[in-house]
Amino acid sequence: MNKTPITVAYGDGIGPEIMQATLNILEAAGAQLDIEEIKIGEEVYKSGITTGMEPKAWDSLRRTKVFLKAPITTPQGGGYKSLNVTTRKALGLYANVRPARSYHPFVETKHPKMDVVIIRENEEDLYAGIEHRQTSEVYQCLKLISRPGTEKIIRYAFEYARSQGRKKVTCFVKDNIMKLTDGLYTKIFNEVGEEYPDLEKEHWIVDIGAAKLADTPELFDVIVMPNLYGDILSDVAAQISGSVGIAGSANIGDQCAMFEAIHGSAPRRAGQNLANPSGLLQGAVLMLQHIGQAEIAEKVQNAWLKTLEDGIHTYDIFKEGISKEKVGTKEFAEAVIERI
Amino acid sequence: MNKTPITVAYGDGIGPEIMQATLNILEAAGAQLDIEEIKIGEEVYKSGITTGMEPKAWDSLRRTKVFLKAPITTPQGGGYKSLNVTTRKALGLYANVRPARSYHPFVETKHPKMDVVIIRENEEDLYAGIEHRQTSEVYQCLKLISRPGTEKIIRYAFEYARSQGRKKVTCFVKDNIMKLTDGLYTKIFNEVGEEYPDLEKEHWIVDIGAAKLADTPELFDVIVMPNLYGDILSDVAAQISGSVGIAGSANIGDQCAMFEAIHGSAPRRAGQNLANPSGLLQGAVLMLQHIGQAEIAEKVQNAWLKTLEDGIHTYDIFKEGISKEKVGTKEFAEAVIERI
Ligand SMILES: CC(C)[C@H](C(=O)O)[C@@H](O)C(=O)O
Ligand SMILES: CC(C)[C@H](C(=O)O)[C@@H](O)C(=O)O
Repeated sequence: MNKTPITVAYGDGIGPEIMQATLNILEAAGAQLDIEEIKIGEEVYKSGITTGMEPKAWDSLRRTKVFLKAPITTPQGGGYKSLNVTTRKALGLYANVRPARSYHPFVETKHPKMDVVIIRENEEDLYAGIEHRQTSEVYQCLKLISRPGTEKIIRYAFEYARSQGRKKVTCFVKDNIMKLTDGLYTKIFNEVGEEYPDLEKEHWIVDIGAAKLADTPELFDVIVMPNLYGDILSDVAAQISGSVGIAGSANIGDQCAMFEAIHGSAPRRAGQNLANPSGLLQGAVLMLQHIGQAEIAEKVQNAWLKTLEDGIHTYDIFKEGISKEKVGTKEFAEAVIERI
Repeated sequence: MNKTPITVAYGDGIGPEIMQATLNILEAAGAQLDIEEIKIGEEVYKSGITTGMEPKAWDSLRRTKVFLKAPITTPQGGGYKSLNVTTRKALGLYANVRPARSYHPFVETKHPKMDVVIIRENEEDLYAGIEHRQTSEVYQCLKLISRPGTEKIIRYAFEYARSQGRKKVTCFVKDNIMKLTDGLYTKIFNEVGEEYPDLEKEHWIVDIGAAKLADTPELFDVIVMPNLYGDILSDVAAQISGSVGIAGSANIGDQCAMFEAIHGSAPRRAGQNLANPSGLLQGAVLMLQHIGQAEIAEKVQNAWLKTLEDGIHTYDIFKEGISKEKVGTKEFAEAVIERI
């Protein structure tokens, strides 16, 4: 098999540790990767680049088109731009795919039957970043919803559901209040939905939809929603499935794709061999599927599941009575590698 | 005791049934109320009034300054305005107080120790209703955050916490993305917070904050947040505490106040003596406290709790093994009245 070129960034905080662990596992599983490393995050921000990404990083990304990214820390204070948002926009990564499933009885959860995928629109909404100070007393931010952007994400959600053998696509919006912007979402959801008679369609106002998701997530399958709702509710879904620490995500565009953990860089845990590499590893599994190394992806996933099942857990998911052995980042990775 | 004039609207769907049940309970408990009835909702909308509120209703509200409101149905299609939003704005009801606590072991919940109050800003944010079509392909909605509005709600939250003997106030915003609007929130939260050294202060980005709330709500006490996050997360909190069907809310302004259930008009359940009047009754209890009839409020609350404890439950919270008797709206109200 030819090696696939990918771009990798070790990030900040716990980033380097979980990236090393992840890459070790991928290598042991025989992933065919040609890795280019780039620098992003704190160090780059502090050098004066407000996006947190060195210019030559973009060359690498445009060449490889595949980005495995560890979490970064954005320095406090004004002037800095979110690297996540910049990357998503610069590379046109319009779909953020965020699976959240429970691993009952191996990881504690109150929702043993949950298996939800949130498809989050990734470029528009309040994340368009159009904010200004009207007067010293009044601040504004623009929520932007476009027809092409909405059509793209909704079609992506239906195609995803069909290709993954899923049964239902649900749409969450607040169209009883935002009749134009969120109303457009509903309209396009209904229009595009007609092309998918094989899939069940469902629509909830986001308040009560979120309430049902948090209470009985097993009612849901694939859920598509605008950027901000998706940001909030994908964290909710991941956390109630077990932990935000074990969820990965794929940011998909027409040309490029970025894969990451959904959690942050947790600076206070950094450098202590404490962090759970599972979120990033789950991102890497999605990456392997994306670049056509599905068999390797399956090998990694099975070894990871076996490790969880054997009760070998990092501190964040360790629970007396369920877990067997509390391990650090390195030991967890070694345990996964032993099980490949 | 002098009777307090209040304005009452029976609303749509299950509204009339739960309002009748609620008023019967209040009367039996000796609440001193002088009730003025107004018409709102479907019938008024259909008569061509886009706000769903007949003009003379405003006179009543300006006179009594206290509004007990059943849920209404807004007809589908364009042109209609949300009556809730109109009323909140017209009467300056800037604070929406939404308690969510569990009644374990009498009402089923996965979160037996939860006792959270969400203080939702009620006039600004994307609810300002400034939306427009830029082109046929691009729609926009304005999120508006003002310094006076933010100061008011944050001060309200701290005052509320102090007066209710609560310990901690948490702020939820997305200030890593919306650095101006949500950033202003954080700034003012920190400023105003300094005046309350007796209270613990906490700040979460709304995504991970929401995740923690949905997973371990017992970590929270009072949470203050902008309108839209508050809309979504108060439904989440109520639902995971037991049901959105048992939560009431107070909309508080400097002059007027409105009390309601947090759920909607559930047209499909209407006229069948099925609905749970508890949400509206909880709103009414908050109203009695507000108008200085705290002893009556306590009588009602204790009788209601005793009814729940005795396992006399409407269909929505009925659970084999926990509930004893499945009753309708009227029978539930009678059971509460017997226990006063
Ligand atoms: C770090 C932040 C900008 C980002 C977002 O809001 O999208 C994160 O919360 C996420 O969900 O990936
Ligand atoms: C009916 C709707 C306009 C309202 C809102 O969004 O505020 C409701 O969801 C609520 O929370 O009271």
